[in-house]
Amino acid sequence: MMGMKGGATGGGYSQVIPMEDINLHFTGDMHAITSAHNLLASLLDNHIHHGDAFHIDPRYIVWPRVMDLNDRSLRHTVVGLGGPQDGVPHQEEFSITPASEIMAILCLAQSLKDLKERLQKIIVAYTYDLQPITAEKLHAVGAMATLLKDAMQPNLVQTLEGVPAFVHGGPFANIAHGTNSLIATKLGLHLVDYFITEAGFGSDLGAEKFFNIVCRVGNLKPDAVVLLVSIRALKHHGQGINTKAVEKGLVNLEKHVENIHLFGVPVIIALNHFTKDTDEEINIVEHWCQHHQVPMAVVDVWSQGGEGGIELAGKLVDLIHNHESRFRFLYDTTLSVKEKIHTIATKIYGAERVVYSVAAEHDIKLSEQLGLSTLPICIAKTPYSFSDDSNLLGRPTGFKITVRSIRFSAGAGFLVPMTGKITTMPGLPAKPVAEEITIDDHGNVTGLF
Amino acid sequence: MMGMKGGATGGGYSQVIPMEDINLHFTGDMHAITSAHNLLASLLDNHIHHGDAFHIDPRYIVWPRVMDLNDRSLRHTVVGLGGPQDGVPHQEEFSITPASEIMAILCLAQSLKDLKERLQKIIVAYTYDLQPITAEKLHAVGAMATLLKDAMQPNLVQTLEGVPAFVHGGPFANIAHGTNSLIATKLGLHLVDYFITEAGFGSDLGAEKFFNIVCRVGNLKPDAVVLLVSIRALKHHGQGINTKAVEKGLVNLEKHVENIHLFGVPVIIALNHFTKDTDEEINIVEHWCQHHQVPMAVVDVWSQGGEGGIELAGKLVDLIHNHESRFRFLYDTTLSVKEKIHTIATKIYGAERVVYSVAAEHDIKLSEQLGLSTLPICIAKTPYSFSDDSNLLGRPTGFKITVRSIRFSAGAGFLVPMTGKITTMPGLPAKPVAEEITIDDHGNVTGLF
Amino acid sequence: MMGMKGGATGGGYSQVIPMEDINLHFTGDMHAITSAHNLLASLLDNHIHHGDAFHIDPRYIVWPRVMDLNDRSLRHTVVGLGGPQDGVPHQEEFSITPASEIMAILCLAQSLKDLKERLQKIIVAYTYDLQPITAEKLHAVGAMATLLKDAMQPNLVQTLEGVPAFVHGGPFANIAHGTNSLIATKLGLHLVDYFITEAGFGSDLGAEKFFNIVCRVGNLKPDAVVLLVSIRALKHHGQGINTKAVEKGLVNLEKHVENIHLFGVPVIIALNHFTKDTDEEINIVEHWCQHHQVPMAVVDVWSQGGEGGIELAGKLVDLIHNHESRFRFLYDTTLSVKEKIHTIATKIYGAERVVYSVAAEHDIKLSEQLGLSTLPICIAKTPYSFSDDSNLLGRPTGFKITVRSIRFSAGAGFLVPMTGKITTMPGLPAKPVAEEITIDDHGNVTGLF
Amino acid sequence: MMGMKGGATGGGYSQVIPMEDINLHFTGDMHAITSAHNLLASLLDNHIHHGDAFHIDPRYIVWPRVMDLNDRSLRHTVVGLGGPQDGVPHQEEFSITPASEIMAILCLAQSLKDLKERLQKIIVAYTYDLQPITAEKLHAVGAMATLLKDAMQPNLVQTLEGVPAFVHGGPFANIAHGTNSLIATKLGLHLVDYFITEAGFGSDLGAEKFFNIVCRVGNLKPDAVVLLVSIRALKHHGQGINTKAVEKGLVNLEKHVENIHLFGVPVIIALNHFTKDTDEEINIVEHWCQHHQVPMAVVDVWSQGGEGGIELAGKLVDLIHNHESRFRFLYDTTLSVKEKIHTIATKIYGAERVVYSVAAEHDIKLSEQLGLSTLPICIAKTPYSFSDDSNLLGRPTGFKITVRSIRFSAGAGFLVPMTGKITTMPGLPAKPVAEEITIDDHGNVTGLF
Repeated sequence: MMGMKGGATGGGYSQVIPMEDINLHFTGDMHAITSAHNLLASLLDNHIHHGDAFHIDPRYIVWPRVMDLNDRSLRHTVVGLGGPQDGVPHQEEFSITPASEIMAILCLAQSLKDLKERLQKIIVAYTYDLQPITAEKLHAVGAMATLLKDAMQPNLVQTLEGVPAFVHGGPFANIAHGTNSLIATKLGLHLVDYFITEAGFGSDLGAEKFFNIVCRVGNLKPDAVVLLVSIRALKHHGQGINTKAVEKGLVNLEKHVENIHLFGVPVIIALNHFTKDTDEEINIVEHWCQHHQVPMAVVDVWSQGGEGGIELAGKLVDLIHNHESRFRFLYDTTLSVKEKIHTIATKIYGAERVVYSVAAEHDIKLSEQLGLSTLPICIAKTPYSFSDDSNLLGRPTGFKITVRSIRFSAGAGFLVPMTGKITTMPGLPAKPVAEEITIDDHGNVTGLF
Repeated sequence: MMGMKGGATGGGYSQVIPMEDINLHFTGDMHAITSAHNLLASLLDNHIHHGDAFHIDPRYIVWPRVMDLNDRSLRHTVVGLGGPQDGVPHQEEFSITPASEIMAILCLAQSLKDLKERLQKIIVAYTYDLQPITAEKLHAVGAMATLLKDAMQPNLVQTLEGVPAFVHGGPFANIAHGTNSLIATKLGLHLVDYFITEAGFGSDLGAEKFFNIVCRVGNLKPDAVVLLVSIRALKHHGQGINTKAVEKGLVNLEKHVENIHLFGVPVIIALNHFTKDTDEEINIVEHWCQHHQVPMAVVDVWSQGGEGGIELAGKLVDLIHNHESRFRFLYDTTLSVKEKIHTIATKIYGAERVVYSVAAEHDIKLSEQLGLSTLPICIAKTPYSFSDDSNLLGRPTGFKITVRSIRFSAGAGFLVPMTGKITTMPGLPAKPVAEEITIDDHGNVTGLF
Repeated sequence: MMGMKGGATGGGYSQVIPMEDINLHFTGDMHAITSAHNLLASLLDNHIHHGDAFHIDPRYIVWPRVMDLNDRSLRHTVVGLGGPQDGVPHQEEFSITPASEIMAILCLAQSLKDLKERLQKIIVAYTYDLQPITAEKLHAVGAMATLLKDAMQPNLVQTLEGVPAFVHGGPFANIAHGTNSLIATKLGLHLVDYFITEAGFGSDLGAEKFFNIVCRVGNLKPDAVVLLVSIRALKHHGQGINTKAVEKGLVNLEKHVENIHLFGVPVIIALNHFTKDTDEEINIVEHWCQHHQVPMAVVDVWSQGGEGGIELAGKLVDLIHNHESRFRFLYDTTLSVKEKIHTIATKIYGAERVVYSVAAEHDIKLSEQLGLSTLPICIAKTPYSFSDDSNLLGRPTGFKITVRSIRFSAGAGFLVPMTGKITTMPGLPAKPVAEEITIDDHGNVTGLF
Repeated sequence: MMGMKGGATGGGYSQVIPMEDINLHFTGDMHAITSAHNLLASLLDNHIHHGDAFHIDPRYIVWPRVMDLNDRSLRHTVVGLGGPQDGVPHQEEFSITPASEIMAILCLAQSLKDLKERLQKIIVAYTYDLQPITAEKLHAVGAMATLLKDAMQPNLVQTLEGVPAFVHGGPFANIAHGTNSLIATKLGLHLVDYFITEAGFGSDLGAEKFFNIVCRVGNLKPDAVVLLVSIRALKHHGQGINTKAVEKGLVNLEKHVENIHLFGVPVIIALNHFTKDTDEEINIVEHWCQHHQVPMAVVDVWSQGGEGGIELAGKLVDLIHNHESRFRFLYDTTLSVKEKIHTIATKIYGAERVVYSVAAEHDIKLSEQLGLSTLPICIAKTPYSFSDDSNLLGRPTGFKITVRSIRFSAGAGFLVPMTGKITTMPGLPAKPVAEEITIDDHGNVTGLF
């Protein structure tokens, strides 16, 4: 909240409230995750300090610390300095709390029991002979789960018009699956007739991970997909600012539609209406949808609230009832790690091939030794392109995906191939929003969005 | 909660509830302070990163980061490593959250307005030519106060018997004033006939600071003091395990009583009864009280609840109504820094003289240049002795107090002479309590005290 | 000497003596360079410590420290820790002494006056507003030159057969020009009829830099080039182990010959004879040379001493007297930085194009602002391939050269485009040679090569 | 040479030449020690990097690195950063080369064999279960001794008048024994009739250590002591600037004379004449000497060369021939560590008692476990006072000596009780001498003293 403008509550007449609380401490879930995460780090360093019975290699401490702030100075630190009474020195990265594996775990765990089992499996370090040290080995699980017990409860809020909504969990889409808690989704499915969840960052990231990871874990069968698109985004992919660019950018939309179809789920396109959009531009999209036989509706919930989404709602319900979903996974988890990555990269991204660094090859081998190679895959990739190069717009072809290393989220239950330099701790800009936030003597806050 | 046994809710029939919540995240005040504190640190480092317009000396960054955990590996760190995109390197200490100056500020601020004014004055660093950089200069105050707005509200809980109690704020008595929030105290004074607050660590620390700092800020006039004593403590100061030691240890009690009298407040001694205390031992204390004309009552609220404190309550009410308090401060703040320290050290501690390191002399000079020398004094000293040597028990004399440096808590509004090595970040023991905490599949927690 | 086997004195009957001294401290030149280099680093940090009048950005301290040892633990360090009395913290790399810019300077300086002028220009850091801080600004030059005055004197040694040789200077070919001191070369040219110097790492690195940098600085006109080749190297580039591979590898030799011709200098090929070479293999090379009209001789100075080089000597003298050298530089220094790099990359390496990272673009711009863009170019590139990918053997085509950043050796007088990760501090292997070196009680050493 | 004025060659007509060389690289001994020292550090870190078979505690790496420069930024560093390929992180101190234990070893070793045996015993680190790791265990001794083989040879120079002098070795008197090499002394004793060695820093440091450590190792029996004194020093200890102060300062001289007598060696006082000394001041010293029956001579070798020392020489020869030395050690090495320290502190310093920190108690216990408690003692203490407080001038009494820790110089063969904060790496002043050193184009140096 303190760096760039733009909070988590949406805007206009569809804003979720209480905005101020949601954007500040809310129900304390973030703080609980922060505490549980850092407790584990402290217990690990404490083990080493008190004799290091496991003979841990300080270079292979893979559990960062977290802080729920943008703070670039914490990206690369050295801790444990000061002398024999102050721990053993090692390099330490701080991530922002949503990037914690515990956030991913909390969003996939279906019960306290499940939570504890996942926490047990977290790998925090390796010994000099490459044995993994887990949270279980450090006897950390009970205390961590205790700190998380309330954070496990879904948070029910509402829009300005009183529509109920869950705001619960938010794993960093950069290195995790990026969708809200499974427990909230499942609760919602019991409560209402139609339940919608957000899976941000496009069909190549949000949708692919939701389908292959979350639906697999939760045994979910989505009935339909609402694919949100904007004229602005189409122009961006068409690399221009006029109607020509809209037309040119449609290849990007086309690939997203195809990707959804790979999973056997019916799709409807929602065109998010902006004030500056012209009729001509909107017509281009409508025309394309008709031509490709994809249902479509213009939505304007920002300025009209629920009223602005009625057409979409009607068409969506129609789609659900008249087009049966034949949901299927993209890959079988028993495939090899490389086969799974290859499947996603070629089918979803449209890549020609996948190349691996020496480190990544080592990681794959290690995943096999540790029995982790049958986990699903959660690729860390830029959301700005189907490729791993954010400059390749539209629908690129003939490119290769480079896997530099693979992180093991053994507790969350997936492997994370890193396809570029992913920052898990943002920095503040030269003029951070924090400098403009004010609160008067009566507690009225301004500058928070 | 994760290191040693012993939470913050008391025990037996006088325990404050809900124990589990109070000992875990409670109302999130700690997390709010942590966030506000670390936001300020991030804004400071961000300023340096984006050009360092103030020309700050990285060796004189005096604002630590905090974490609400025992974590010795964070005592001495280096942050800002990694290259030009990742901040400017400097040494960084992490303290535990209660040691944050913001905790002290929150416990002294009487309104949001007051809170903001105090936050403004926090000194976070110095330039190469010794100009102080404050939170105000970094435009941090609005965002910090916004993060703290709910934490400013007192938390009302109750004992097992339903007696109301505020649990609000807890500044580290080691380097701050160690008493709960003034805002809770003042609220309480409006609500009930008799209001009691705790000022831990003896007359030389808790009481002295409460009288000279908190009462001065809040314009409070205490009616009476309940001086809590135990046979165990008297034996400790008598350096033995038998009745003889109790007798010998009474010189320590004597000095505490004299100290209270220096402030003009009537005092009653409450002997906290432990199961193993013998009648003979209790008689020694009673006899001493009679001889010195100090009212006294044995209390046993641990095993009997309120019933065990009835005698004390009666005598205390009697004391308040029949002995007028002539409360006065020990020193005038217009005295020089050394005069104020000398007054506390000689009158309260019984020291012969005060000596200053070269660093402390510099600090005093700087406090004068910065206009901070008229602040009250909050000495950081061991609670185990009237002196600064924890081995000198009973009522030592002829000793000197050594001031090694002086920290400026310009926002809290006091100067902190450091009289020894004060750790503001505890470590975990070889067998931390955290390892024994469990939670079953239904959310029942064990191992939390 | 302490890591891998293989010293600097050659072997067999052409070894240069005294081997032991040359491989240990020799005349102390390395130590003098180490001292002068580190003195400058100390003066820089001292300037910052005493008030930092220049307002230096600690992230842009570009002057490493050096040590004349393989020591990987010094590659990445943080110095200046410990508190206000112990300097200002910053990240610091240690290089091995030959990688010091001072080594490059010493090998290009033609007099003490020239040495001092070059030392003056060394850039050690930048201010927050990108002003360069030089050795001159730090008043370091007099002391540095004083430490180097004896190291400037060429060291005259001899082979086992008494042939005189200079062993003087050795700039790391990875990031500098890699040839011995110009002052020794010029002294040699005054003393004898024929003077040969070594310019290691092939025509693309050693020769190109010797011609374009050293000859330009020293106004030298080489009469001829002896191009040393081995059957083993040809097989490596032919990617096989039989005669077929020798044939296939000749494309690599061909490119080297063409490269020499680009400079207008006559060339003779010397085939360094190894015991295992077969006549058939040698015939292939001889045949190729005849076909391409390049003079050639087999040499075996390792087993036969000077006798083994007589044929080469004769042919070389013949070449010098009968083929006039029309030596010319490959590029004019007034060209832009990119034009100069492009010329080398396309003409010498055979690259298709050159691409630049964002950092490299910045560096080029900065070089122009600082008036350094008219310096010659000294590309840091792998010696294992004509390209910047050590796996591309033979004579690769169609490849691109990626410039990641550009270092300014303002004192040495060249710009260093970095085309890959160049380590300037080697590590020791798991079984370092140092462990096998022994010295008996009479001073006899074994294990030194 | 680069920080403060004042080299190692003396001044005036008794200067040792070649001054310039001696003050710069000289015969390279310092460089050889630097190389051998840092090689050992590199081998240690290399061992850890390649699997850490010994399970070394990174907090107990006790072997620093060294550099032969004043460089405060290297006092406290962290090395081994950068990732798994770049070593294991640990805190690292750099000392100035004379503070290396290898310097102390070189100055005590009597042969190459002895040198190797001492190098073997150097302790560089401890494992997590407190087993010492020695240079021998790291197979470092052969390579280290090879690097030191020439440095072991004594360096023979001469004064301006041609008097021969050895300049060989210089262990930091702060943490070592502070006298030149035993091998040079023993060589000198074979070559001339009268041989004089310097043992700087007074009878309490230089002389005590020379007698108890060097003479013990080398089986030397000194015939006489020349105790050098100046009017300036006496005034300093008398705390004034007039003749009164000279008189008052004589108690300091008295204690030095008594200390020498404790070793049974005849003593003569040499009053080093300064231009400003008055006859009256000199008379005071002469009078005192007559009264105490201590022979005495005024010397002025600075302005007169050897001529100025003729009286001293005559009286010294007389003393040697007519007063038999009954040299004896002050303590037996079989005494306990505390008894040995107590003996030195009370008899030589005049202390009342010795107190030990917790760390020092641990160190003593460890020295016993490692079989090192029978080594002689080499106390690190300020040279400015007989006590460990540099402000106590004259002949203080009633003071205590505080031992904070004990370093083990197992190779040099002594234990070093640390009685204060001893800096082994000096810093440069705000205006370092280095800035004033110049060298002209012909190699003439100015500014070197």
